Amino acid sequence: MDTGDLTATPEPPYYAVVFTSRLGADDEGYDAAADRMFELVQTTPGFLGADAARGADRVGITVAYFRDEPSIRAWRDEPEHAATRARGRAHWYDAFEVRVAKVERAYGFRRA
Amino acid sequence: MDTGDLTATPEPPYYAVVFTSRLGADDEGYDAAADRMFELVQTTPGFLGADAARGADRVGITVAYFRDEPSIRAWRDEPEHAATRARGRAHWYDAFEVRVAKVERAYGFRRA
Repeated sequence: MDTGDLTATPEPPYYAVVFTSRLGADDEGYDAAADRMFELVQTTPGFLGADAARGADRVGITVAYFRDEPSIRAWRDEPEHAATRARGRAHWYDAFEVRVAKVERAYGFRRA
Repeated sequence: MDTGDLTATPEPPYYAVVFTSRLGADDEGYDAAADRMFELVQTTPGFLGADAARGADRVGITVAYFRDEPSIRAWRDEPEHAATRARGRAHWYDAFEVRVAKVERAYGFRRA
């Protein structure tokens, strides 16, 4: 997630899970867990890619793309992911929002 | 967008415009233009809120929420916004992606 590249996705329709969060003061273990979750999500059938950014104000956005609803549910129910979500609620996040959205159209630009 | 707060949105359905970008070396004027666009979008009927983050790798994500497709089109067609998009392609961005998605469900968490 730190390569500076934007993820490439297939033609819509597909799904986006938009995760916005604000980290609190107790972020011990957060970075390692985030790296591990990014590694783990790649093994989810139907995972298409993800982008992530977090600024100096500790607000972060991760957008993960999935082929369909069953692949979103498979990621939600993945046991290590569920355990990490519980750590997030207990320790790391002051606030978060999860939005599941169906991508209807997309376009992009790459400098030549 | 630098308050560290997450935007609050009404119950779905509504729309999310996910804008991912990578800034290039020529970012003169970018910060002022981004602030101005955030100010301007608030005047768009049907605009519901936005979150934004950009990390040290220069990858940024802005997610803007709109009530419906007409409000997305109104923002797209706003003249000052269109002119700023042209500056972005010409100068600021190495790459970007725009994805328009219909939010189907959402949930959140706030630390007590």
